[in-house]
Amino acid sequence: MAQTTFEEISAADFFYRNRDIAGFTNPSRAIFAAVRELVENSLDAAESLKIPPDIYVRLSYEGEASQETQIYKLRVEDNGIGIQPRHIPSAFGQVLFGSKYKLKQQRGTFGLGGKMAILYGQITTHQPAYITSSTGMAKIYNYKLMIDIQKNRPLILDRRVLMNKEQWRGTVVEFCLEGDYFRAMPKLLDYFKQTAMVNPYANLTFVDPKGRLYKFTRATKEMPTPPKETKPHPYGVDVELLQRLIQITPYHTMLEFLRNHFHRVGEVTAQKFLEFSSLSPSKNPKRLSHEEIVRLMHNLKKFKDFLPPDASCLSPLGEELLTAGILKELKPEFVAVHQRKPATYAGHPFIVEAGIAYGGEVPKRGTFVVYRFANRIPLLYDEASDVSVRVITAMNWRRYRVTPELPIAILVHICSTKVPYKTVGKEFISDRPEVRKEIANGLREVARQIQHFMSKREHVDRERKRLGVFNKYLPRIAEFSTKLAGKQKNPDIDKLLTSVKQFGDEET
Amino acid sequence: MAQTTFEEISAADFFYRNRDIAGFTNPSRAIFAAVRELVENSLDAAESLKIPPDIYVRLSYEGEASQETQIYKLRVEDNGIGIQPRHIPSAFGQVLFGSKYKLKQQRGTFGLGGKMAILYGQITTHQPAYITSSTGMAKIYNYKLMIDIQKNRPLILDRRVLMNKEQWRGTVVEFCLEGDYFRAMPKLLDYFKQTAMVNPYANLTFVDPKGRLYKFTRATKEMPTPPKETKPHPYGVDVELLQRLIQITPYHTMLEFLRNHFHRVGEVTAQKFLEFSSLSPSKNPKRLSHEEIVRLMHNLKKFKDFLPPDASCLSPLGEELLTAGILKELKPEFVAVHQRKPATYAGHPFIVEAGIAYGGEVPKRGTFVVYRFANRIPLLYDEASDVSVRVITAMNWRRYRVTPELPIAILVHICSTKVPYKTVGKEFISDRPEVRKEIANGLREVARQIQHFMSKREHVDRERKRLGVFNKYLPRIAEFSTKLAGKQKNPDIDKLLTSVKQFGDEET
Repeated sequence: MAQTTFEEISAADFFYRNRDIAGFTNPSRAIFAAVRELVENSLDAAESLKIPPDIYVRLSYEGEASQETQIYKLRVEDNGIGIQPRHIPSAFGQVLFGSKYKLKQQRGTFGLGGKMAILYGQITTHQPAYITSSTGMAKIYNYKLMIDIQKNRPLILDRRVLMNKEQWRGTVVEFCLEGDYFRAMPKLLDYFKQTAMVNPYANLTFVDPKGRLYKFTRATKEMPTPPKETKPHPYGVDVELLQRLIQITPYHTMLEFLRNHFHRVGEVTAQKFLEFSSLSPSKNPKRLSHEEIVRLMHNLKKFKDFLPPDASCLSPLGEELLTAGILKELKPEFVAVHQRKPATYAGHPFIVEAGIAYGGEVPKRGTFVVYRFANRIPLLYDEASDVSVRVITAMNWRRYRVTPELPIAILVHICSTKVPYKTVGKEFISDRPEVRKEIANGLREVARQIQHFMSKREHVDRERKRLGVFNKYLPRIAEFSTKLAGKQKNPDIDKLLTSVKQFGDEET
Repeated sequence: MAQTTFEEISAADFFYRNRDIAGFTNPSRAIFAAVRELVENSLDAAESLKIPPDIYVRLSYEGEASQETQIYKLRVEDNGIGIQPRHIPSAFGQVLFGSKYKLKQQRGTFGLGGKMAILYGQITTHQPAYITSSTGMAKIYNYKLMIDIQKNRPLILDRRVLMNKEQWRGTVVEFCLEGDYFRAMPKLLDYFKQTAMVNPYANLTFVDPKGRLYKFTRATKEMPTPPKETKPHPYGVDVELLQRLIQITPYHTMLEFLRNHFHRVGEVTAQKFLEFSSLSPSKNPKRLSHEEIVRLMHNLKKFKDFLPPDASCLSPLGEELLTAGILKELKPEFVAVHQRKPATYAGHPFIVEAGIAYGGEVPKRGTFVVYRFANRIPLLYDEASDVSVRVITAMNWRRYRVTPELPIAILVHICSTKVPYKTVGKEFISDRPEVRKEIANGLREVARQIQHFMSKREHVDRERKRLGVFNKYLPRIAEFSTKLAGKQKNPDIDKLLTSVKQFGDEET
């Protein structure tokens, strides 16, 4: 009889075997993915301290790897919060270890990106990574690390402690990886440009392997209100989460349990809910049977009187900053933006921001130019599968006097405590009906605005032509009539001209 | 100073938090994903014993979950190899534990799908899964299981051992999950139909929640040659793999090490390679320094004289079975198929099979109907991002007298020891240049065949018209001439007609 052999693999081993899933598909994508993962960690690290990020990225050429690929050294420096020394090895050398498993909006969420970059570097060059970090206290810590892939544990090769005389704070990551920079270059520059667009308070510096310097200077030091950590909303709760909360709760009554562990549940709401689900307020949550927990979960979803999640755990860009970003980037003739009210999918709050720009430097491509963002990250790959692109494709743009032949750019930004990415590489967002609906509504709003602009423009154009005719012929008619009447002075036709104008001057 | 808190999560916890990544995006996708993951495990389990699969799938309605979703019980039975009792709990209750981390073509590869289905069922219904299995020996084992998500370990709730009087062999999985069958139905039926198309030797039975029976009966008991497990090819080796091999090797010389652990490396090739990379054949691989291992890896990739991987680890469908599948499914007027020679990407062997069908029951949709398969799995979602669709879109079909307005279906099947899926949910294949090239070449070949058919058809049409003219007028001319000549009997014009035919009869 055939025997089947079984084995267990570590999470690091899983991603080592399946790097396509994390966006490290080929040498060009690998360079792109490594840079973006580290830049996003750096942006998060600075924002969590509420200071405008200063990020320095350098890629330097180290040698040939094959006919088509090279070895590069990647260095990313930030002025972020820094990492406590005891966490440095695992934070960079252990997959699924991280600080981001929290209910608030942040760029990284998988506890995976930075390590995947280092893992990829290690697989392709077998060189260690160097991490330098300080939280601004007396010391700077310096680690030389590799990853034990089979065990999913960091291997510390060297560790140094330096005095931090200048109170430097931040993190520097440096490692080598195989890649194809020249194929990655267009996307990478796009990435920096679009990142600068939705993070106008950040300084981004990029030095490429040819020594070319790309600098994106901040336009403002103002930053959006940082997101607050939140509790789970009752509509998003599943049995697993309920069990975990029951396990750790210090509260001994259902009333206290509900009030303290859930978002939007106060004393009154908790009492109403307990009545609705026929549970005694004094019941000890730890005494709930499995069946009662399942029923509790269903009742939490059914109860109508929970307020929707508030948006304090979200940090949208805001209409003002979004407009500024679009104007700065695209210098259009017309721009409209719209921020939707907070909504939820599966209990996760999210906000959609939509924008549309026309003319100016917006390119004419025969299709709409689409900019997609999630939690202030630009998404540049696999556009065709993204929910935003599907909504845009399905919309009847002609209704809004807009066609793909016009120079039109459309922007969609989704922020959420949990962006429903379809891939670990954060390339595109999956098609959740609630998200789709919000995007559609956001786009319809900006579409109406551009429709108004377009029809006004047409009207103004038509009116301008009509007035042009009057302007051209009235003076001659006046002159002719004056001569005919034997008068010397032409009559004042300005009043007449004004009277035929149907629009005020402010329109032109 | 702000403190950052770090935590570690298990692999099960990761997928619990990120179910979109594994294809469990919404209640309709969840039903689809659960069924397909279990069906694919069952197909693999039967094929590994070289017996034609008999698979029975039943979805039954268990009650309402919310306004839009229901609770279903899913039961999947197979006649496969069965699982040894000691492995049953982990095989179904531990993520990243599996039998499929091997170098040969198989459907499942992530050690994830079946458990994700059970995990999803547990999260949404909090009910245990029931697994019954026997390898055909004296006993049948019955487990009642749940998953400890935080620890990524199975929880055995009950275990029974039954006597196997009838020598039954196979596995039955049964569990409840929340879903939306009615939205999932079209894709699910498509899935069964297409699975039957590329697995013509399998019996598939599906009973849906309304009790409707869908039966796909095998057309043949003949199965493609099963794939053999293979060793890694030198071109696909990285430093991590080299280190693992060095760690486990029982061989004490480089010569033996290379000969025994790599595909396509015999005595002579190993010697040539060692000379090429200036390594002594008698050197002990365990004595290689890190630098030497890195150099070895680069040299393995640079050396030109390794033969390409043979295809014994692959099991393509073959042109005959592929044609049969297309004919059975689409009943077209014309079909062309082509199997490419084995190729490799990153050292992984793969084979592309392409097919094109015209007319008959192929629907006219205004776009090509595209069927995508990987290792005999139909891929039904996220078509737009798939490499095959990109190749098809980029091709100049007019050159081949083919336009999207015609009733044309295009089929691409990729089989590989490692299909470069972009998502864990196996929805689409990433855009690797080597894979893209093979697909393009395969499609060009079938495109040439259809071009030939199309132009022949046009020619035959034209000729038929021309002959029609002769057929219509020659007899009248003959009759008229006969009368004119005062004769009674018309001359035999058949010879004349034959002489103006430019094509043999076999063409019409």
